[in-house]
Amino acid sequence: MLDNSSVIPLYYQLKQILREKIKSGEWGSHDLIPSESQLAQQYGVSRATTRRALDDLTREGLFYRQQGRGTFVSPPKIIQGLSRFYSFSRDMENKGLKPRSQVVYLHEVKAGAKVKKTLNLADGSTVYELKRLRLVGDEPIILETSWLPAELFQGLTVEDVENHSLYDLMENVYGVLPVNAEEYLEPVCVDEYESMMLGVPVGTPALLLKRVAYDEKERTVELCKSIVRGDKCKYHVRLP
Amino acid sequence: MLDNSSVIPLYYQLKQILREKIKSGEWGSHDLIPSESQLAQQYGVSRATTRRALDDLTREGLFYRQQGRGTFVSPPKIIQGLSRFYSFSRDMENKGLKPRSQVVYLHEVKAGAKVKKTLNLADGSTVYELKRLRLVGDEPIILETSWLPAELFQGLTVEDVENHSLYDLMENVYGVLPVNAEEYLEPVCVDEYESMMLGVPVGTPALLLKRVAYDEKERTVELCKSIVRGDKCKYHVRLP
Repeated sequence: MLDNSSVIPLYYQLKQILREKIKSGEWGSHDLIPSESQLAQQYGVSRATTRRALDDLTREGLFYRQQGRGTFVSPPKIIQGLSRFYSFSRDMENKGLKPRSQVVYLHEVKAGAKVKKTLNLADGSTVYELKRLRLVGDEPIILETSWLPAELFQGLTVEDVENHSLYDLMENVYGVLPVNAEEYLEPVCVDEYESMMLGVPVGTPALLLKRVAYDEKERTVELCKSIVRGDKCKYHVRLP
Repeated sequence: MLDNSSVIPLYYQLKQILREKIKSGEWGSHDLIPSESQLAQQYGVSRATTRRALDDLTREGLFYRQQGRGTFVSPPKIIQGLSRFYSFSRDMENKGLKPRSQVVYLHEVKAGAKVKKTLNLADGSTVYELKRLRLVGDEPIILETSWLPAELFQGLTVEDVENHSLYDLMENVYGVLPVNAEEYLEPVCVDEYESMMLGVPVGTPALLLKRVAYDEKERTVELCKSIVRGDKCKYHVRLP
């Protein structure tokens, strides 16, 4: 029960209790949970306190709401490995999920200063800039922008990248095998554009993942920035 | 310059331009940047648009504000490695920074269901629950809670953990050598309590890092949950 004399705020205590109900398995995936007023009554707190706890946990991805139906327990987050080379398409297929890509755009452009430097390109070089929305079923999960040296991937088409893993294409069509990568991870809150693309409210926690990939000839073959929905995914790493 | 005919919102285009100024080195750490109205005039946008871009980038940690003085460029984020066993104290010292710990509390409690299961403890076992604020100089960076099996760390004191790396203590005082760990990373937005402890606004992006550590005898020796300020830190991993 909640401790009124604690320095820990009541909504915070309530969050811990509700979290525990999911962790312990008492509440399972897609279960309808009690209403705000039922919870308020059960724990002897105000509806404002209950709403705040539910709002927070919904933003964190533990619950989802359906208009007029109530608040439900979210299925577990998709766990993505950080210890090995990551391909969204391959990983989702391995998990028995149906990955899809929607190409927002693919065009060949002159490399900007930053991209040129990162990809180690000569002056005047062009790159393919590819923005994709990665989905599982109908649900957008990742908004991803890749920059690829045009000379390595001549003739890349929207159809190619919509129907194949980019890494499979690199390997099988262009003979480019990405074997090493440097990745940087930062937490962000989705902005208006990302919110629109990913179908989540502005401010939803997300992970900004930047990757620079190298092939077996030590050429820089891709720069990629992904916005990964934090309410749907978490990352795993095993040490050492 | 900004493209009024683009589908990409103006504030978003402006964010990209301001980001580029930092990346290119045109604006350096702790530089005062032009005011909202100067930027609005320079890029031909409204002050509301400028404010929004600056608000977003400040929340992301690229800028910081000083009351009555203006907006400044943040120093680069602290980069933390994910590929090896991480100790905040050791890492900060290696970087020439001065790590400090403030103990919020340390007490011995009966292990709750979740902690008991994770730490693989017998019924009725107790754990040390340790909450620490990790600082660099005077700046809080991480809010961290550790659960340690009490039988392994008898007599642990606040003084110990304030003055030493927990991993050094484990190793040198208790003969427990953590060698493996499982880590999970999720993006979150700091809530009111975390905001108060970390001294950042509610909603600031942060990383929730959960670690379960094992010693060389394959005993589970620690469960730890950290809230890491996203405006101050990013994570790095090298693949494979």
